Amino acid sequence: MVKTLLFAVSLVGLWVMLWPAPAMVCSQETQRAEGGLAKEIHGILARQQMAWNRGDIPKFMEAYWNDPGLTFSSGGKTTRGWQATLDRYQTKYPDRATMGTLTFDALETQQLDVHSALTLGNWALERDKPASGNFSLVWKKIDGTWRIVHDHSSLLAQ
Amino acid sequence: MVKTLLFAVSLVGLWVMLWPAPAMVCSQETQRAEGGLAKEIHGILARQQMAWNRGDIPKFMEAYWNDPGLTFSSGGKTTRGWQATLDRYQTKYPDRATMGTLTFDALETQQLDVHSALTLGNWALERDKPASGNFSLVWKKIDGTWRIVHDHSSLLAQ
Repeated sequence: MVKTLLFAVSLVGLWVMLWPAPAMVCSQETQRAEGGLAKEIHGILARQQMAWNRGDIPKFMEAYWNDPGLTFSSGGKTTRGWQATLDRYQTKYPDRATMGTLTFDALETQQLDVHSALTLGNWALERDKPASGNFSLVWKKIDGTWRIVHDHSSLLAQ
Repeated sequence: MVKTLLFAVSLVGLWVMLWPAPAMVCSQETQRAEGGLAKEIHGILARQQMAWNRGDIPKFMEAYWNDPGLTFSSGGKTTRGWQATLDRYQTKYPDRATMGTLTFDALETQQLDVHSALTLGNWALERDKPASGNFSLVWKKIDGTWRIVHDHSSLLAQ
């Protein structure tokens, strides 16, 4: 009886010993995530661009973390929270003429860690008074979905 | 003999089973890192500020990842690589008068994942023509040291 119990415990022990080590598990997860990461994030940005070009700012805002912890920096100032960021966009772009046609370009995404990533890219607004610049987006995977938790956007001096 | 061997294997098995599971190891590592994270990173920024105020731009640059992969965005443009970022600083701030006295303020650091973090803060240059703004720093822990891998800095419109 004792012999059988010891044998059972030793089998479980061997199974646990053969299980990948903690470091290996983390690294495998990173590799899996990295494969489709740029595709997934650039897909979100393509949908965001389309929403803007339909004049739908609330839909455009879906890429952002809907949380008071969201931060949006631009022109030396930081807006805090999803609602304040939406309000800022709606105040700054009150109609289709000011919104113009948005293009994202030169997107580069790198994984920082298992649940975080960084995207650099350029933005351009085609309109009566064109504007362009670049942005840095910090992403976190929250409840299985990549969300922008921080955006720092700059305007190129004309 | 077989009984002794089985007993030995079962002891190893029990020891391995009692070892923290992969997920627990990752989470414990995060917690350990988070505790002193802000202190560690704000210490690096304090030393960076002191180096600037001694007129030592190369020392100031030590906080940045010394790699062609470093990116520095400002005013709608991105500078790529550590050397190009140093060159940009040395061209933009050729002497002590243009460098002025640098102050970092309102620093907030959040851990993104085990090996990545984000710092938001304000910068100000006290000089004949004062300048100020804010920045977003993306950090990665590389070979045990936190390094800025991306900086997006904005100038506040005067």
